Amino acid sequence: MAATMREVAEAAGVSIATVSFVVNNSKPVAPETRRRIEEAMVRLQFRRNMVGRALASRRTRVVALVYPAIEHKLGASGMEFVTSAARTASAAGYHLVLWPISNDAAELTQLVGQGLVDGVLLMEVQLEDARVEVLRATRTPFALIGRSGDLRDLVYVDIDFDATMQDAVDHLRGLGHRSMVMVTGSQADASFRAYGPYVRAEAAFRRIAAEQGFEPVVLECEQTTQSGRAAAEQILASWPGTTAVLVFNEFAAPGLLSGLLRRGVCVPQDVSVLSVLTSTEMSTSVDPPLTAFSSPGAELGRLGVRALLRVLEGEAAPPPALLPGTLVPGSSTGPAPGGGSARERHA
Amino acid sequence: MAATMREVAEAAGVSIATVSFVVNNSKPVAPETRRRIEEAMVRLQFRRNMVGRALASRRTRVVALVYPAIEHKLGASGMEFVTSAARTASAAGYHLVLWPISNDAAELTQLVGQGLVDGVLLMEVQLEDARVEVLRATRTPFALIGRSGDLRDLVYVDIDFDATMQDAVDHLRGLGHRSMVMVTGSQADASFRAYGPYVRAEAAFRRIAAEQGFEPVVLECEQTTQSGRAAAEQILASWPGTTAVLVFNEFAAPGLLSGLLRRGVCVPQDVSVLSVLTSTEMSTSVDPPLTAFSSPGAELGRLGVRALLRVLEGEAAPPPALLPGTLVPGSSTGPAPGGGSARERHA
Repeated sequence: MAATMREVAEAAGVSIATVSFVVNNSKPVAPETRRRIEEAMVRLQFRRNMVGRALASRRTRVVALVYPAIEHKLGASGMEFVTSAARTASAAGYHLVLWPISNDAAELTQLVGQGLVDGVLLMEVQLEDARVEVLRATRTPFALIGRSGDLRDLVYVDIDFDATMQDAVDHLRGLGHRSMVMVTGSQADASFRAYGPYVRAEAAFRRIAAEQGFEPVVLECEQTTQSGRAAAEQILASWPGTTAVLVFNEFAAPGLLSGLLRRGVCVPQDVSVLSVLTSTEMSTSVDPPLTAFSSPGAELGRLGVRALLRVLEGEAAPPPALLPGTLVPGSSTGPAPGGGSARERHA
Repeated sequence: MAATMREVAEAAGVSIATVSFVVNNSKPVAPETRRRIEEAMVRLQFRRNMVGRALASRRTRVVALVYPAIEHKLGASGMEFVTSAARTASAAGYHLVLWPISNDAAELTQLVGQGLVDGVLLMEVQLEDARVEVLRATRTPFALIGRSGDLRDLVYVDIDFDATMQDAVDHLRGLGHRSMVMVTGSQADASFRAYGPYVRAEAAFRRIAAEQGFEPVVLECEQTTQSGRAAAEQILASWPGTTAVLVFNEFAAPGLLSGLLRRGVCVPQDVSVLSVLTSTEMSTSVDPPLTAFSSPGAELGRLGVRALLRVLEGEAAPPPALLPGTLVPGSSTGPAPGGGSARERHA
């Protein structure tokens, strides 16, 4: 049978209160003392059972990061986010667990209903997100990484897509590129229609193109190297005058670059490639290293967890935060070629 | 106040039994019925609280995948594993949650002690793994992806490092390469000394080299593109006669390749590069695409979850499974160059 807190306290030679600080992770305990207590817990097979905990407190000090890993691959920028979120939660005495559940309100309803976590951090948010309604309806404390369409009462941190796309277009315009093609992610997957980031980045690109008077070309592309290579082929075939490509697709960017190089296109002499909201890991892993506006993944993780914890602790919800990507110079963008186009030079 | 199962059953026009099948995910329920019940649960703010569940049953139907994301980046092969594990659990009526906790027995002790999950799947296992002792001592049902040194009573699935390394070396020897350099992952991080995969792969390589009578060169390299490029530099500088490199490092492999190419080395004409136990996604994202023995991540995820569920259901534990990597032809390996070495040809 499982031991009691009293037995653990006696075995470790500490007060029951000290054991409970460790059990509930509710107060700092000296490392050496914590170690003694945890050894006693293991030795005596102390198991905080759900009844005991539930009667003692509703709190689990566990927060869930809901990430639909089955639909959306977690790229390097996503991992930066997860690790910084886990670190931030851990530093605050919380455990962050990842729920790689499908983008599905029913499964989320079941999990939050089990009372296994104190709060939820929701990622990969769509404009119409049924999961947001579940969290509202079940009164689950939550914060969003991203934004649904209806922002009423939402606590969220997100990327500033308008500012990032403006900076990205300005970077290319500043190099003399009169027009550019945007390669974005595919929303073919029905479960990810109206995926916030793609929708907002494309809308910003179209708005800026209209303001600056160039024809926006937007190419949807799956999250794979193969599709990136196919996108390069299509750009050279359908828009041979292209001198600059703006790619917002962590998984397709390396393929887009290699697709251009395989066709004998010089990057950046013939065509500039600018990667937006991707990880430095990806953009430095290819040759030439990609000039990029890197995703603020780690900072989003920190701010998102802090926002959720403030909600949990009953403090005033922080104001929504919008973070832009920051320019990480690489070797894939350069001055627009004087005359002619990639196609003409490489026919 | 939260609704009862009876109220949900009335609202959904079904029996209380049917509601409980959905609540406990214990029997299949027709999708349409399930939808009606879950809508009622949301509308009535039905919350299965921990007391109710604990009294009803000790089961949460949640299993945790313990992955130390903070120490070990989750690469593309790791993601293949996680998604297939999540799918397998979901198909069996379980939820798989990911615990990205540090490689730390104390934190694991706290989490399993909370009774939030029915069982644990442990990844990134080391030869001496304190987490295994915690799971044994707390009587937590668990299975390993990987193996600690002491296999007593362990339920595990792992990669067959001996067979994979033998196949990899044979592939290169078959192309006429008399010797080869192995680039493996760094174990500098104290929290990952004696990390099973690196230890077993290197031991297999050294054993095979001894059997086949060549001098094994093993280079530790951090999990980054930069370190991969540095490893290429070091190979050309310190072992200029090298004609074949065997790389077991998902994150460094692209850098190793680009480091060789930047130095004017032709792959595979001058130096063959064979990537072992990495993802097809990584090996096809570079140019030339890497010949690789791809990691059986998806299959390990399926088998690992099935093994754990059999333990949970009180069935006989399945025998340990060891899976080899499978050859995925690419363009980075070829016949050993007739005479001379990379250094001589590119001095």
